[in-house]
Amino acid sequence: MGVLSEGLTHVLILVASLVGIGFALLQWFLVSKVRVSVESGNGYSDRLIGEEEEGVDNLDVSLKCAEIQNAISVGFLGMKIATYANARTTLQARKGVGKAFITAFRSGAVMGFLLSANGLLVLYVSINLFKLYYGDDWEGLYESITGYGLGGSSMALFGRVGGGIYTKAADVGADLVGKVERNIPEDDPRNPAVIADNVGDNVGDIAGMGSDLFGSYAESSCAALFVASISQFGVVHDYTAMSYPLIISAMGIVVCLITTLFATDLFEIKNVSEIEPSLKRQLVISTILMTAGIAMVSFLALPSEFTLYDFGTDKLVKNWHLFFCVSIGLWAGLVIGFTTEYYTSNAYSPVQDVADSCRTGAATNVIFGLALGYKSVIIPIFSIAIAIYVSFSMAAMYGIAMAALGMLSTISTGLAIDAYGPISDNAGGIAEMAGMSHKIRERTDALDAAGNTTAAIGKGFAIGSAALVSLALFGAFVSRAGIKAVDVLTPKVFIGLIVGAMLPYWFSAMTMKSVGSAALKMVEEVRRQFNTIPGLMEGRAKPDYTNCVKISTDASLREMIPPGALVMLTPLIAGTFFGVETLAGVLAGSLVSGVQVAISASNTGGAWDNAKKYIEAGASEHAKSLGPKGSDPHKAAVIGDTIGDPLKDTSGPSLNILIKLMAVESLVFAPFFAAHGGLLFKLL
Amino acid sequence: MGVLSEGLTHVLILVASLVGIGFALLQWFLVSKVRVSVESGNGYSDRLIGEEEEGVDNLDVSLKCAEIQNAISVGFLGMKIATYANARTTLQARKGVGKAFITAFRSGAVMGFLLSANGLLVLYVSINLFKLYYGDDWEGLYESITGYGLGGSSMALFGRVGGGIYTKAADVGADLVGKVERNIPEDDPRNPAVIADNVGDNVGDIAGMGSDLFGSYAESSCAALFVASISQFGVVHDYTAMSYPLIISAMGIVVCLITTLFATDLFEIKNVSEIEPSLKRQLVISTILMTAGIAMVSFLALPSEFTLYDFGTDKLVKNWHLFFCVSIGLWAGLVIGFTTEYYTSNAYSPVQDVADSCRTGAATNVIFGLALGYKSVIIPIFSIAIAIYVSFSMAAMYGIAMAALGMLSTISTGLAIDAYGPISDNAGGIAEMAGMSHKIRERTDALDAAGNTTAAIGKGFAIGSAALVSLALFGAFVSRAGIKAVDVLTPKVFIGLIVGAMLPYWFSAMTMKSVGSAALKMVEEVRRQFNTIPGLMEGRAKPDYTNCVKISTDASLREMIPPGALVMLTPLIAGTFFGVETLAGVLAGSLVSGVQVAISASNTGGAWDNAKKYIEAGASEHAKSLGPKGSDPHKAAVIGDTIGDPLKDTSGPSLNILIKLMAVESLVFAPFFAAHGGLLFKLL
Repeated sequence: MGVLSEGLTHVLILVASLVGIGFALLQWFLVSKVRVSVESGNGYSDRLIGEEEEGVDNLDVSLKCAEIQNAISVGFLGMKIATYANARTTLQARKGVGKAFITAFRSGAVMGFLLSANGLLVLYVSINLFKLYYGDDWEGLYESITGYGLGGSSMALFGRVGGGIYTKAADVGADLVGKVERNIPEDDPRNPAVIADNVGDNVGDIAGMGSDLFGSYAESSCAALFVASISQFGVVHDYTAMSYPLIISAMGIVVCLITTLFATDLFEIKNVSEIEPSLKRQLVISTILMTAGIAMVSFLALPSEFTLYDFGTDKLVKNWHLFFCVSIGLWAGLVIGFTTEYYTSNAYSPVQDVADSCRTGAATNVIFGLALGYKSVIIPIFSIAIAIYVSFSMAAMYGIAMAALGMLSTISTGLAIDAYGPISDNAGGIAEMAGMSHKIRERTDALDAAGNTTAAIGKGFAIGSAALVSLALFGAFVSRAGIKAVDVLTPKVFIGLIVGAMLPYWFSAMTMKSVGSAALKMVEEVRRQFNTIPGLMEGRAKPDYTNCVKISTDASLREMIPPGALVMLTPLIAGTFFGVETLAGVLAGSLVSGVQVAISASNTGGAWDNAKKYIEAGASEHAKSLGPKGSDPHKAAVIGDTIGDPLKDTSGPSLNILIKLMAVESLVFAPFFAAHGGLLFKLL
Repeated sequence: MGVLSEGLTHVLILVASLVGIGFALLQWFLVSKVRVSVESGNGYSDRLIGEEEEGVDNLDVSLKCAEIQNAISVGFLGMKIATYANARTTLQARKGVGKAFITAFRSGAVMGFLLSANGLLVLYVSINLFKLYYGDDWEGLYESITGYGLGGSSMALFGRVGGGIYTKAADVGADLVGKVERNIPEDDPRNPAVIADNVGDNVGDIAGMGSDLFGSYAESSCAALFVASISQFGVVHDYTAMSYPLIISAMGIVVCLITTLFATDLFEIKNVSEIEPSLKRQLVISTILMTAGIAMVSFLALPSEFTLYDFGTDKLVKNWHLFFCVSIGLWAGLVIGFTTEYYTSNAYSPVQDVADSCRTGAATNVIFGLALGYKSVIIPIFSIAIAIYVSFSMAAMYGIAMAALGMLSTISTGLAIDAYGPISDNAGGIAEMAGMSHKIRERTDALDAAGNTTAAIGKGFAIGSAALVSLALFGAFVSRAGIKAVDVLTPKVFIGLIVGAMLPYWFSAMTMKSVGSAALKMVEEVRRQFNTIPGLMEGRAKPDYTNCVKISTDASLREMIPPGALVMLTPLIAGTFFGVETLAGVLAGSLVSGVQVAISASNTGGAWDNAKKYIEAGASEHAKSLGPKGSDPHKAAVIGDTIGDPLKDTSGPSLNILIKLMAVESLVFAPFFAAHGGLLFKLL
């Protein structure tokens, strides 16, 4: 038995999740102190009006921000927090970049802590409620808890796939009519789709990423708990050791809370150039602190020696083995994050080379961008492979699940800096729409540039953890289905493997087509409004923003049906007609193939986006020689950026859902497939 | 024992290969009757001069063709036959499309039959020579024969990867300076790189495809022979049954010979529109005849019942099982070929949709093209999966090898129609360079258009057979290494699987970069010549074609070292340091991932090429609305075409080599790895 008592375990988990929720609410309170509407007329609005802002009536600006905020938040209820923060960040940008940064970051932290702490709390409460029914049957209890993982992942299907289609349909639709046909600038308030575009940023980046990472968190916890329940911990009813995954998550919340203070209270951003290092420092600090936290939890909560279920046999494991499993996941995440940053930030040579290739046109830009994406998979895959080898060898499937949870243990910080991105992006859009000065727009642009890089890092974490989680779920599926070995050298498994490796391509073809169809619907609506609303182009009449948001919402929900059906039906068909061995092959194939497609698509898209920004910013001699906006190289870069949009925000990240959801669905239906599956082979 | 006696087996194989070679020589003789040089002044030149040709001096045209032919054939000795045919096809085009078609097709047939018949003969002779040394030790004899497969594949590394880099370096280099900087048309004789570009077509399409398919043929034969040698056939020394793979190939030569007569003698092409159906009919006829051939060979050469080696056990197999194994490979090839055609020919909606997407610019063209490529993997993968399942279940690894050989049994026809493509392409270029009339150019263009589609079909065959061959070699490797199961649920295998699935991306990034670097070298040389040779732009001085060819050759040989090293070193490193289980994982991972990347890259590139041609040809109302040349949609289509060049001619097809060469290398070193490999794991 570990040192930690059962009672203390209860207290620790409960306190950490409540503190996390409290901290999120505190951050929300601090953000809300920035007043957007002026009707209430308390002291803050006086303070705001007292700030210097050239040439624009302050009351008018605040009113406009309030109006825009209202328009953006009509789209998705769940996005309230983020949209709430956008206008406030814009207003704070008038006081200086440091204040704006803190507002944006705090708003991100609200998301991060609320999600992680709530996730832990709901899981904890569910386990204890289910216990009332299952009593001492821990295997049954934790088996039923896997439904929580399925729920988390199904939610992510909507957030990631639907959100990904939504955001790019609105983006591409707004650009095609606004920029190309009507020749009005990006984020121009006359464009009826501009609000849908801004909503899309929140839906795709915040709801998509949040639900994806939350799904991974829920699934890795469930996979670990399920394996533990059929191991020694479950058999001897060692509650503390059984709760090891939850205690790790609780420790993660505490670590991230301390880390956040570094950004918001201990250091102050005085200069635009400090933003990106400050965000990256958050990752490093949380990783270092968490390593110590993992050591503490592993030595206090676990017995020094115990056995874990390993495909029918019992594997002898020591507590320091699990320290290594969780830590290697955590550090692999950091390596993947920084590799992603290296390949997608325009501070380094890969993106600069892509920008340089724009000299010879769009074709070379695309070739170099694709090659960059292909190359960027190498280090992440080796990191994942090492993490898998170490954790797999030390603690079998439980080790893999815990490595995934280790990568996700700093999820609060990860989500905070990820949500920071679209908030800053929107803040810039609001500054443009509200007609603020050039100086303010420059500050929000600087916030946004850093957000682009951290968004790429977030995507790296998401796919890395998705790979580990899927493998853990795959292991749990195999255990539940009673398969002894998944031998590539049997025809049933091999055909599963090769068809599974094909699925990410099929799925990507579908999601890319979905973006195209949804964007066309948006184009029609925007054209209709320009043609039927008199005075819209002249700015005398207001466009019907709500209708565009509705179009985008409806189209994305309808267009996600075919790819969603592919994900949901494949395990059912494979399991029912071909049996558990073929299904195991399908899962392994889609996992090892999908992770490559996802990483390369995300990084190619990110690199094109930042190559374009590199030319636009013109911050170096090299960049200046490629610009300015409107030059031939810039035009080539814009083409690359547009191609990258669906790759990095729809088809790439959606693959995380493909590999996870198929695995968790297989896990849930495993007993059925094992008993009744393989109809086709039985017939032959 | 089968019905066929040992003596008859010898006769059959020998006669078929000699007839094949004889037939190839006959076709060569028929092609050579078209005189290019006029110095010899025999009756043929009189006949040529007698033909009508408007406005151009005939003697001059023949002289120019002769000169261009000489320039093209300086590049690669092995390409003599094809380059020999180019000028002759051009000259025949003056007499009508039917004559030109027959000349181009006969020239392709020379390649096809020479390669397949020679391949069979060399294999047969080698086996009988090795027998003098090995005597009754058939296992040792056929084990040593696997070296033939390794040789075939190493040759293909040069042909496919080096050739792929060569052809696109010359193509892109010629275009970047000629079309972009100097504003002179494609195939203009003033461009110093124009000959290198034409040589490149032959090197990439003929040498590349030929060596690739030949490698597959050699390897699948060796894999089948090796498995047979450790099965009943080898143990009881049943020579006829043992030679089953060779007899199938011999039958293939006979079938293809009959098929060729349909194209050259039984039907006559009178109209441009008959070309493509005629080429496709060749594939269908050869497949139907070959199915009957396989049935005959299976019932005559094999005992009605026998056992085959199946990973340590003996599997009972009937002769009609093998009929199904070989036939399913053959028909899967046809399905893959026609699927590829559907997705890359501009006669069908997929390519027309891609062309239509050019309306909204290059970005949508690229997005639609990538989505098309992703979608085009679905049917080929299901075909391969079904072929694998049936042949694997019926006759284990021997069945897989025979399915691969079945797909390759009509290799003579396949290569004939594949080589037909670049010959027609070059013929068009020569017509342009020799200043022939518009009417002639139209005829050669029609020949070329059909060639584009058949080239895509050829690529489909190449990747399909590469997948089956690699699996057969993988099976042979596993048998030789003494592995009992390749269980995905062991960490050693899984990390191999995920890293293996990454290799196609690493390799593609390398080959795409190689094309870029080699193209830049070509650009420098072309610029140098334009700047230093006085009167070159005015057409008064001749460019130094030879130097460009040399630059391209040297650059491609140097640039193929990094990707070549990746292919050659990976099995050595994986086997030596991580052992045979990890290596098995690497092979399976690279196989299932590489086949997807290869198919999607080839088809995406092919679709872009034909979408551009669709707009240029303007043959329908829809196509006319997108054109003409120089319109915005056409410009967008040209960008897609340029991006597709390295995808379809370098990185995509090169992956065949990656998966095959790694497998055959592993097979050769299997005993060493099994005895001494896995150093790293032994240390830990």
